[in-house]
Amino acid sequence: MQTLSQQSLSLHQRTKGKIGVSLKVPLATSEDLSLAYTPGVAEVCRQIADNPGQFNELTVGGNSVAVVTDGSAVLGLGDIGPRAAMPVMEGKAALFKKLADIDAWPICLDCREPDAVVAAVQALAPGFAGINLEDISAPRCFEIEDRLQDLGIPVMHDDQHGTAIVLLAGLLNACRVTGKRLADLRVVISGAGAAGRAIVRLLRCIEQNPETCDAVKEVVVCDSKGALHRGRADLGSVKEAILEYSNPGNRSGGLVDLLEGADVFIGVSRGGLLSAKDIRRMAPDSVVFALANPTPEILPEEAKAGGAAVVATGRSDFPNQVNNVLVFPGIFRGALDVRAPRITDKMKTAAARAIAESVPDPSPENILPAALDETVAKKVAEAVAQAS
Amino acid sequence: MQTLSQQSLSLHQRTKGKIGVSLKVPLATSEDLSLAYTPGVAEVCRQIADNPGQFNELTVGGNSVAVVTDGSAVLGLGDIGPRAAMPVMEGKAALFKKLADIDAWPICLDCREPDAVVAAVQALAPGFAGINLEDISAPRCFEIEDRLQDLGIPVMHDDQHGTAIVLLAGLLNACRVTGKRLADLRVVISGAGAAGRAIVRLLRCIEQNPETCDAVKEVVVCDSKGALHRGRADLGSVKEAILEYSNPGNRSGGLVDLLEGADVFIGVSRGGLLSAKDIRRMAPDSVVFALANPTPEILPEEAKAGGAAVVATGRSDFPNQVNNVLVFPGIFRGALDVRAPRITDKMKTAAARAIAESVPDPSPENILPAALDETVAKKVAEAVAQAS
Repeated sequence: MQTLSQQSLSLHQRTKGKIGVSLKVPLATSEDLSLAYTPGVAEVCRQIADNPGQFNELTVGGNSVAVVTDGSAVLGLGDIGPRAAMPVMEGKAALFKKLADIDAWPICLDCREPDAVVAAVQALAPGFAGINLEDISAPRCFEIEDRLQDLGIPVMHDDQHGTAIVLLAGLLNACRVTGKRLADLRVVISGAGAAGRAIVRLLRCIEQNPETCDAVKEVVVCDSKGALHRGRADLGSVKEAILEYSNPGNRSGGLVDLLEGADVFIGVSRGGLLSAKDIRRMAPDSVVFALANPTPEILPEEAKAGGAAVVATGRSDFPNQVNNVLVFPGIFRGALDVRAPRITDKMKTAAARAIAESVPDPSPENILPAALDETVAKKVAEAVAQAS
Repeated sequence: MQTLSQQSLSLHQRTKGKIGVSLKVPLATSEDLSLAYTPGVAEVCRQIADNPGQFNELTVGGNSVAVVTDGSAVLGLGDIGPRAAMPVMEGKAALFKKLADIDAWPICLDCREPDAVVAAVQALAPGFAGINLEDISAPRCFEIEDRLQDLGIPVMHDDQHGTAIVLLAGLLNACRVTGKRLADLRVVISGAGAAGRAIVRLLRCIEQNPETCDAVKEVVVCDSKGALHRGRADLGSVKEAILEYSNPGNRSGGLVDLLEGADVFIGVSRGGLLSAKDIRRMAPDSVVFALANPTPEILPEEAKAGGAAVVATGRSDFPNQVNNVLVFPGIFRGALDVRAPRITDKMKTAAARAIAESVPDPSPENILPAALDETVAKKVAEAVAQAS
């Protein structure tokens, strides 16, 4: 019996990758050639030169997203470099096609300085309609994403916002299950990296639009030394920025202390941090998102033994999987459909709400749709297009 | 009745481009997802991290060529920018797929300085197995291509070498038709741009290997002011470099004077330069390649009236079309098949000979195979792989 790893390797050996290029026009006769290529194509070029918007109507570029990485923070593997990151980027491109009919292509960059990554993405942007940044390590990912927001096409670092959006979707349904209101929640996050920063920003900074959702009442973020608070001198600029949105009461202390009376625990850190006893300190009907992979911060069974009403993880073999696949195809589809120049917080919350509403009757074991539910991307795309 | 331009535009409007992404693996079930994407894909990444050569065996990148332009010299349209160049790049990618089963993707760069173009290509190279530079203006194209030769994957500027290779193929068969020997030929080239430089280098510098072919005896290159010779002070570095390979007798004078007694005229300049009277000055059984598009330096009928035994153009509506499509799919296929780190002169002459030999029984109206002859790329690939 092969392990999952062996099966995956065999599959890749057999297919030599997961995507390919397909043709949308015939190329059998010399007439075909003169229409698809020279000399006929000159007129198509001329149309775009005269009216740049025609790029989207006349070429694959208008439906194409670059899946860009530098290979510096790949899955749980870390800094394995751009070529070794390719199988993940290719998988992502395959999912873009399957779930949102987007023609995405993997771009694996051999550079590390934010200046160089930004320059490379700016250079190649004209051929694409969107940029999905992927598996780029913190804190470089923040600067890189920020500096690319004015490209004129949507640029999103999925490890940050994809995770945050699915998390918010899950939290919306967890509220329905537990009868709590988002605006009343006290949330503790373990992990002040890329996903942690995006989650706290989305939970706290979301558009104050009752049609989308409210901000949660309080978020406290911990790193390995405990709460980020205003008395700490060791934070650095990224964690200082997280503080702008979090810990309004300036609490200090370790993770376990902070759980006292909290409604929600969100782990985006490392496996095996918590026990059932720790969860017992939380408020009644607590909600646990233990997203470290492959080993969650606490296993679902143990979290339930500690009184959690709802538990989600990043794994497909437990209920309630938080999987970015629920977000990125639909959010880019929606942004491309209306040619949104960037992906705003309002579009992100609209995506979260659409994902949440894809679950008609949420229950403790069912707060999120299945990762490959083909209806989700369509609903997300519509909501995102409308919110843009 | 629609013109060709209108038909091409309609086709592009209908299909919104010529290529798309296709899937090589199923993505229907959560098991599919765990094999193609997380968590199974981690093992595939690990294999490549441990053994970089596995990139070629396990990902689409091993079969993928980037078709890279900056949009500075597109067809006869000139500097129309990267987005307007997309239809050409996409057509090229489609031809790579159709004729050589290569998964090529268009990359349209928003940068112009050679430093910036080189940096962008170096940055994105890890995700590809080859780089086809396209429609980049001279003299920048020379520096850019030269500086990318040590990337470890084949990098070829098709406007230079593709044209030169088909030209050599046509010349080999023109020799068979006229009974002349390559080593005896006196050649005059009109045009000292990208294609002119590559042609003179290939005709003069080809590997002195009797199994491939000899160098021609003499090439003189003209620009709009006449022959490039050692007495001219106005040449600049690119034309100076052309002189290294050309005009051994240091002839001066205008194009028409230089045709006196020449065996071969090669035009890569502009339409309507020559008349039948000019061709009459050439040696008996002269050969004319009038490649300016859409209007050749001289029309075939007129060249024949002047005594030319063989006439080729760049157009599909005359016999003997010199079309790069005969080269680029096969030469990259061959280079990829053997993982050649670059495309050498020996590989280029092998490609030319394979194209020439694809015409079993050359005649004045038939020195080159049809552009979409599917057997050519295969023969070129085999010859190139063997020559690498």
